[in-house]
Amino acid sequence: MLVVMQSDATPEQVARVIDSIRQIDLTPHSLPGPTRTAIAITGNTGAVDARVLEVLPGVKECIRVTKPYKLASREMHRDDTVVKLPQAEVGPKTFTVIAGPCSVENEAMVFRSAEFLLSRGVKLMRAGAFKPRTSPYAFQGMGVEGLAILKRVREKTGIGIVTELMDTEYAAAVEEAADVIQIGTRNMQNFSLLKRVGRCRRPVLLKRGMSATLEEWLMAAEYVMAGGNYQVMLCERGVRTFADHSRNTLDLSVIPPAKALSHLPVFVDPSHGTGKRAYVPAMALAGLAAGADGLLIETHPDPERALSDGAQSLDFPGTEKLLDQLRKLAAVLGRTM
Amino acid sequence: MLVVMQSDATPEQVARVIDSIRQIDLTPHSLPGPTRTAIAITGNTGAVDARVLEVLPGVKECIRVTKPYKLASREMHRDDTVVKLPQAEVGPKTFTVIAGPCSVENEAMVFRSAEFLLSRGVKLMRAGAFKPRTSPYAFQGMGVEGLAILKRVREKTGIGIVTELMDTEYAAAVEEAADVIQIGTRNMQNFSLLKRVGRCRRPVLLKRGMSATLEEWLMAAEYVMAGGNYQVMLCERGVRTFADHSRNTLDLSVIPPAKALSHLPVFVDPSHGTGKRAYVPAMALAGLAAGADGLLIETHPDPERALSDGAQSLDFPGTEKLLDQLRKLAAVLGRTM
Amino acid sequence: MLVVMQSDATPEQVARVIDSIRQIDLTPHSLPGPTRTAIAITGNTGAVDARVLEVLPGVKECIRVTKPYKLASREMHRDDTVVKLPQAEVGPKTFTVIAGPCSVENEAMVFRSAEFLLSRGVKLMRAGAFKPRTSPYAFQGMGVEGLAILKRVREKTGIGIVTELMDTEYAAAVEEAADVIQIGTRNMQNFSLLKRVGRCRRPVLLKRGMSATLEEWLMAAEYVMAGGNYQVMLCERGVRTFADHSRNTLDLSVIPPAKALSHLPVFVDPSHGTGKRAYVPAMALAGLAAGADGLLIETHPDPERALSDGAQSLDFPGTEKLLDQLRKLAAVLGRTM
Amino acid sequence: MLVVMQSDATPEQVARVIDSIRQIDLTPHSLPGPTRTAIAITGNTGAVDARVLEVLPGVKECIRVTKPYKLASREMHRDDTVVKLPQAEVGPKTFTVIAGPCSVENEAMVFRSAEFLLSRGVKLMRAGAFKPRTSPYAFQGMGVEGLAILKRVREKTGIGIVTELMDTEYAAAVEEAADVIQIGTRNMQNFSLLKRVGRCRRPVLLKRGMSATLEEWLMAAEYVMAGGNYQVMLCERGVRTFADHSRNTLDLSVIPPAKALSHLPVFVDPSHGTGKRAYVPAMALAGLAAGADGLLIETHPDPERALSDGAQSLDFPGTEKLLDQLRKLAAVLGRTM
Repeated sequence: MLVVMQSDATPEQVARVIDSIRQIDLTPHSLPGPTRTAIAITGNTGAVDARVLEVLPGVKECIRVTKPYKLASREMHRDDTVVKLPQAEVGPKTFTVIAGPCSVENEAMVFRSAEFLLSRGVKLMRAGAFKPRTSPYAFQGMGVEGLAILKRVREKTGIGIVTELMDTEYAAAVEEAADVIQIGTRNMQNFSLLKRVGRCRRPVLLKRGMSATLEEWLMAAEYVMAGGNYQVMLCERGVRTFADHSRNTLDLSVIPPAKALSHLPVFVDPSHGTGKRAYVPAMALAGLAAGADGLLIETHPDPERALSDGAQSLDFPGTEKLLDQLRKLAAVLGRTM
Repeated sequence: MLVVMQSDATPEQVARVIDSIRQIDLTPHSLPGPTRTAIAITGNTGAVDARVLEVLPGVKECIRVTKPYKLASREMHRDDTVVKLPQAEVGPKTFTVIAGPCSVENEAMVFRSAEFLLSRGVKLMRAGAFKPRTSPYAFQGMGVEGLAILKRVREKTGIGIVTELMDTEYAAAVEEAADVIQIGTRNMQNFSLLKRVGRCRRPVLLKRGMSATLEEWLMAAEYVMAGGNYQVMLCERGVRTFADHSRNTLDLSVIPPAKALSHLPVFVDPSHGTGKRAYVPAMALAGLAAGADGLLIETHPDPERALSDGAQSLDFPGTEKLLDQLRKLAAVLGRTM
Repeated sequence: MLVVMQSDATPEQVARVIDSIRQIDLTPHSLPGPTRTAIAITGNTGAVDARVLEVLPGVKECIRVTKPYKLASREMHRDDTVVKLPQAEVGPKTFTVIAGPCSVENEAMVFRSAEFLLSRGVKLMRAGAFKPRTSPYAFQGMGVEGLAILKRVREKTGIGIVTELMDTEYAAAVEEAADVIQIGTRNMQNFSLLKRVGRCRRPVLLKRGMSATLEEWLMAAEYVMAGGNYQVMLCERGVRTFADHSRNTLDLSVIPPAKALSHLPVFVDPSHGTGKRAYVPAMALAGLAAGADGLLIETHPDPERALSDGAQSLDFPGTEKLLDQLRKLAAVLGRTM
Repeated sequence: MLVVMQSDATPEQVARVIDSIRQIDLTPHSLPGPTRTAIAITGNTGAVDARVLEVLPGVKECIRVTKPYKLASREMHRDDTVVKLPQAEVGPKTFTVIAGPCSVENEAMVFRSAEFLLSRGVKLMRAGAFKPRTSPYAFQGMGVEGLAILKRVREKTGIGIVTELMDTEYAAAVEEAADVIQIGTRNMQNFSLLKRVGRCRRPVLLKRGMSATLEEWLMAAEYVMAGGNYQVMLCERGVRTFADHSRNTLDLSVIPPAKALSHLPVFVDPSHGTGKRAYVPAMALAGLAAGADGLLIETHPDPERALSDGAQSLDFPGTEKLLDQLRKLAAVLGRTM
């Protein structure tokens, strides 16, 4: 961290800042310049609130130099993280598709979806038993009954299960049913939940919050990792902007910097990102081309009758067509799928 | 809801939309026009996903006409809600200041804060025992020990306590210690938590999410109210925009439409909204002038040594000066404080 | 347009709205419903300010049903527009790369850039003679002298020139030097300039404004087209959001809806969109995969010594590598380049 | 400016950065630290593109320490700027209301508006002869004929005229008709126009761009001031965010930092900021309380028949009521109006 003094700061003001830095157990380094003094700070500044120093008399501004995340940072861990699931390996050189219905509606449709996906080479299925809905009057998911369905379908078919955990109360139950625990966008900064899944033995798919900066997203991953669970996968799913041409603004531009700053795999969810079926294939292909490690796609045997998010779900022929296109593109880009 | 057909939609396509509306137990009303047909829908459309119809062949777009919230809506409840606390009454004609430290740091400082506030006519104190922090390495609050401190200070001084609940696990404990349960901005769409406080007997102060639309905010209030707890107070605390001149963009412009669409009281938190002490008084006065029902302000006996958010906390003389200004302004605006 | 009345609107209020609609020479169609009345409006509503009706007593809201743009709309012009330049044809089935330095710095570097690009199959070169710079103290471009350089380089090499016009004063001069006239993001709603280029005989590359909705962007295109110049190409170059991981947020998600709503070609500028050289190739490939018709890329013979935007410019080897990757991807996607 | 090297940067990489800084005629100051080296830069860094250094090998990031604007900065000019108009003085201790119709529609209504305003103590009238409209099919203003009307009304009544200039072509004509030249939000970065009004002898009211940061806004003022016209007044009029509860998001939170960083007066336009008449008074009062130096308000003798922006215009009784409330509030806040 660097404290920049005002050009007319007095020596007493500089001394006071230096003193304040020492009081919080950090080391100040005074750097007098031609027009003003700056004070560099070393030590563990990750948890320091820069504004504490910024309000001292004579201070112009405080500038954070090092990143506040460690475990999620590529500086600490040069090689890409590979997440090893029983059904697949997520990481560099591969491209992993996770598909399936928005929510578990009944056993037949989940089973049918799993069989379809496996027959097309997709080994991981998404399906929500707990559904975060904006309206209290909307379908909230089948809950524990939905988890039981997922377990049975996994046993019968061998498909890997990706499903959302919404509160600490059901952490153990979801951990038992899931191969990957999904944390939804509205819970990206539900710190109690992040701490809880930090103690789970399943990989975590961490969706980006609707208005989360890349740093906040990586800090959320840091919460999970600080608890001992290093198997974190990031998932971009659209952010909140002024734009109104789609449900959210799918931010593919975050992929290259996320891969540069962190070693964690990055997924893209074009279904939530666009909110419209017709836009999903183009954004899925673009996600692959942008360097994502995988996709999360909503597929439904009968989208027009889906209990939730039918408008953004592909049907089976649409999914099949997209998978073909993805495979061709992946081959050119040197990725196996 | 209104379904607008494309100008070249066939009668068969119109018939199919009408059929689909009936299948979800709603009533279609066909409205043929000179260039295209529109279909109005009546019935309980609150939980209908417009996009289900929007993807049918021949449909141009679906337009929601009625609001999806009911209990929070002024259409359903013309008069302003008055929240009656043992220490104060929140609602029209009054202006309620809630002040206090960001977090409970120790009993002495909480007690000192309470005494100062009561001596200046402030009857409600904010102070967090559980702190949502972006970094897992930052001070996370004193937890249940902090709640015990708050209870003792309330017993000794009679001050009303406003404190944050972060997860369902501690709901009963917070309910016991608090006169008002605060739901933080990161939890505005933590639906499990909203449902839980819907069963609490304490009023809820619901902070707006960082990128929540007014409708989403009122839907979050609806979650609490649908559980039977009608004592909800909204709190604007700054939203996430492109602007970088302050920590968040305090959105005072939401106050008039919030008051128009809903009967719930609206608070403003200029401390989090600006993130800088120097900007807090101007925004506090502006919040009052804009029609807010109260303020949530961070005050600390020694801001430069605060464990969290010191940079945005007023000291006691600064708080006193602001209270004086607020009282003068409130008098002119016909509000008692 | 549809006017939705409040549930308790009186017949007199409904009559007054109907009267107001007639006064602005439009046709009202009353649609009484079970809980409220709606009034559909037909006629040329493109220029009507919905809010004029919205403030009448008893009105709940006004909803715009038809789009305000006509010439830019795919409803009016089903087939994709093909822009025919002397050097290339922009449109479906092709993928057009426009590359070159941010600004004209001297004749040698422009000539060297043109020769390099032509040798690699790139037939259109971008280079600015007039530069919009945030700071009045930054290099503002070589102006008319820069245009003269561009003309000479075009004569010598045959490369097509894409260059920016910043004000009406230089419209004729730019028209003479350019094969494509670029309108920059800060001028997307400089309506005097849009009207002026509507009278030019050169195609226009219209960059999206930093916070322009898709509708506003198409309305800006409509300004140019309403003047008689139908050769408009859109260019996404990053929008302004809360995100801070790159210079702007390159919004690839706008491509599918832009292609759905309009028949105009869409380009992507990953150089301005990301602001960092390292992120350009991934976003360029993603733009192609997302369905764009072409790219605008900054290439410089010596980026570290560029007078502007060097940090986001590729060097020649980097450009060559990217062109190879684009060609491979284009082939798979059925596009010629 | 400060260049922060990566922790594993080599001495050669540090040397190259130092060399690059010298090549752009600035002075490097190497600051070796325990984990990494930083290099401070002195000299005129205002026009330096930080990214040029940021892309050099071994560089982690570049941090700008000093502000790029000088003339608009309070560091250079401690005292508040007072803009002296024939009719009024804008600056500290006063509160200046500019009101009037959105556009000049005919001489009678402009004259009537001027008489009304003067009778209520408002000495400056806004009215547009040139109107920037999103649609090419909407009323574009009366143009030079409108300017002639404004001149005649000024002669007859003595009211001060505030009117918009949209392009350099009409600069002289607007300068002759206006006491204050308004630059609209869409032209905040129309640099040709800013340079032109820098040569005008009239004060300039500079509206904030829809997605302009405070720094960009002050840089736009710097363009005008760098041309020799120091009489610049800033005007906040709502920015573009995700929020949909009003036409724009009126950002009152920018007022305190704008006043802290700059000595220029700051106005607020609650009419464009909210887009709805019902929300204007609350936001006008809040603007005053937040520390603005004045307001820009749309008032119309018959808003329901206005040719533009009628929905956000107050009628005369509404204006009168608001002026009364503003006067009472101003008195309490120590401002004369």
